[in-house]
Amino acid sequence: MKRREFLKTAGVGLAASTVAAPAIAQSMPEIKWRMPTSFPKSLDTLHGGAETLAKAVREATDNKFQIQVFAAGEIVPPFQVVDAVQNNTVECCFTAAYYFIGKDMTFALPCSAPFSLNSRMQNAWQYNHGGIALMNEFFKKYNMIGFPAGNTGCQMGGWFRKPIRELADLKGLKFRMGGFAGRVLGKLGVVAQQIPGGEIYSALEKGTMDGAEWVGPYDDEKLGLYKVARFYHYPGWWEGGTQVHFFVNLERWNALPAAYKAVLQSAAAHTNVWVQAKYDAENPVALKRLVAAGAVLTPFPQTVMEACLKAANEVYAEESAKNPEFKKVWDNMVAFRNDLYQWWQVAEYSYDSFMIRTRPRG
Amino acid sequence: MKRREFLKTAGVGLAASTVAAPAIAQSMPEIKWRMPTSFPKSLDTLHGGAETLAKAVREATDNKFQIQVFAAGEIVPPFQVVDAVQNNTVECCFTAAYYFIGKDMTFALPCSAPFSLNSRMQNAWQYNHGGIALMNEFFKKYNMIGFPAGNTGCQMGGWFRKPIRELADLKGLKFRMGGFAGRVLGKLGVVAQQIPGGEIYSALEKGTMDGAEWVGPYDDEKLGLYKVARFYHYPGWWEGGTQVHFFVNLERWNALPAAYKAVLQSAAAHTNVWVQAKYDAENPVALKRLVAAGAVLTPFPQTVMEACLKAANEVYAEESAKNPEFKKVWDNMVAFRNDLYQWWQVAEYSYDSFMIRTRPRG
Repeated sequence: MKRREFLKTAGVGLAASTVAAPAIAQSMPEIKWRMPTSFPKSLDTLHGGAETLAKAVREATDNKFQIQVFAAGEIVPPFQVVDAVQNNTVECCFTAAYYFIGKDMTFALPCSAPFSLNSRMQNAWQYNHGGIALMNEFFKKYNMIGFPAGNTGCQMGGWFRKPIRELADLKGLKFRMGGFAGRVLGKLGVVAQQIPGGEIYSALEKGTMDGAEWVGPYDDEKLGLYKVARFYHYPGWWEGGTQVHFFVNLERWNALPAAYKAVLQSAAAHTNVWVQAKYDAENPVALKRLVAAGAVLTPFPQTVMEACLKAANEVYAEESAKNPEFKKVWDNMVAFRNDLYQWWQVAEYSYDSFMIRTRPRG
Repeated sequence: MKRREFLKTAGVGLAASTVAAPAIAQSMPEIKWRMPTSFPKSLDTLHGGAETLAKAVREATDNKFQIQVFAAGEIVPPFQVVDAVQNNTVECCFTAAYYFIGKDMTFALPCSAPFSLNSRMQNAWQYNHGGIALMNEFFKKYNMIGFPAGNTGCQMGGWFRKPIRELADLKGLKFRMGGFAGRVLGKLGVVAQQIPGGEIYSALEKGTMDGAEWVGPYDDEKLGLYKVARFYHYPGWWEGGTQVHFFVNLERWNALPAAYKAVLQSAAAHTNVWVQAKYDAENPVALKRLVAAGAVLTPFPQTVMEACLKAANEVYAEESAKNPEFKKVWDNMVAFRNDLYQWWQVAEYSYDSFMIRTRPRG
């Protein structure tokens, strides 16, 4: 350190040692929170996001604010983490909001819904089109406040024992899938079932299931599904850019000093970009390994995609007719989506098109 | 220190003197930094990113760590902010690294270079493929450490008085553009010139320039270029996902308490997602206004794009042959790009393709 700087900082330090401690003590209290996630530890992208968030908070507060992370089921079952936050059993959680559409379909929209926003559009909507505030009006009913904290990017359509060649192939198909998209596919004859990740492999092997969707190459590889259902369909039109959330109990949030609120928000945003970056860095190499191991990349036929879009729009209309809160959020989101894709196709998409077309030449 | 402030802090200090004061004083000192940007205040996306970063830091530290933001030229000329950080004239700056390719072409790579990574890929490379660490080995020579702190997404190709229909139209074209891409276009007969943003309009109006590139719809609209050069070409193949940086003088960085280092890193990442989100939210509506005002959206012909790619690859090869540091970073990046686009075309691109094709039906 240069002498002049040393003198300057030393002076500051001296003055500081006699001052400002109680304000600091008040503004930087020691806090310990517990954060269950809805993900197993093996998902080092999603569960890893929770660890990244906790680390950022811990380090930014000089270890004063400690958030202990628990994997799915360690202290709270994976699909009850929102209830635990709502009831103040835990202070916060890390999850995908669409796991909670049983309470209200609106939970799907800031997370992922069929033919909705891609990853960057979801961020644009959340941070700069009032999405965070709009959703927090809704989350308030569940005694929570929430912030975007990760994104998977567009997911894959899943693993199928036989390829989907035409619409008729969907009739009677037993497919592992939950929630919103299950309702859409139900209109087209699919028998959608929700079974835990750990049971998918044997269900496909035995033939009690015809197909199953999970996430994308990096996460899917761990389940080994390519060994029992080798047709890997794309795109996952029900998950164009699935965003995960960091939820905090509202009373706990309100009791925090302002500095800690700011630390949590930046840590969540940091985690948001980190999770997407990790998926984007890991998926390409995982995809290569999967294809080398026998996975057969198979696009959904456009006729099937069109039928799914039509069915999805029916579900959106049905839900909007009976759920004003859902309608309010979806109307806002779909108008934004339509504007955004109009711009997207100009620079972003034509750039990607050219890069994809010329890639084989390096 | 002002008397009132002194009294305030002194009083506070008295009460706290029995609790943990020295540790706290050490970990949360009062710090004031100055951060010049390379952008005018009117660019509320890029200059606004600097304000967002400073706010996040201030709030997360209970106003203890204050970063004062200065627009281009207020205290440091826009293209000398890196020198000012290197020389410790200021503690940090907010800029686009490619403004400094006069020092070394390697500066372009973590920012934007022709036919390189798109926005999400740039993040994936930085946060999860060792990019941040790799670049900081390089920035060390300039006595700085840097972090990604924003992205414009894919930019537009700029405004032209006459449309580019074929390769021959580039010959002798006087085009406002700097640096790396100027060198590429020079191989195709373009006379690339760097002139300040404020002079572009009159140069196009008088016809002393034939075209000019700036950023994208939202920023371009402010310059009013559509009035004097209405052909709006795309995509900006030299800026597929331009990332901006937050640079800190290395001695200042090393002298920071660990908590402040963590605060700065999360604030930069927060700003990174915020800037991209703002561009993505603002560009679509700006584009509509521009088209309504007479801008003519015009894709670059594929033959022209192909010729530019070939010329760019020549420049990459020339620079790599004489600059080992550039070669090291570019080889790493281009291998990553090729893998990433192989995956990108599967889920992400086919999803966007379908959404763009069906958008007119809402």
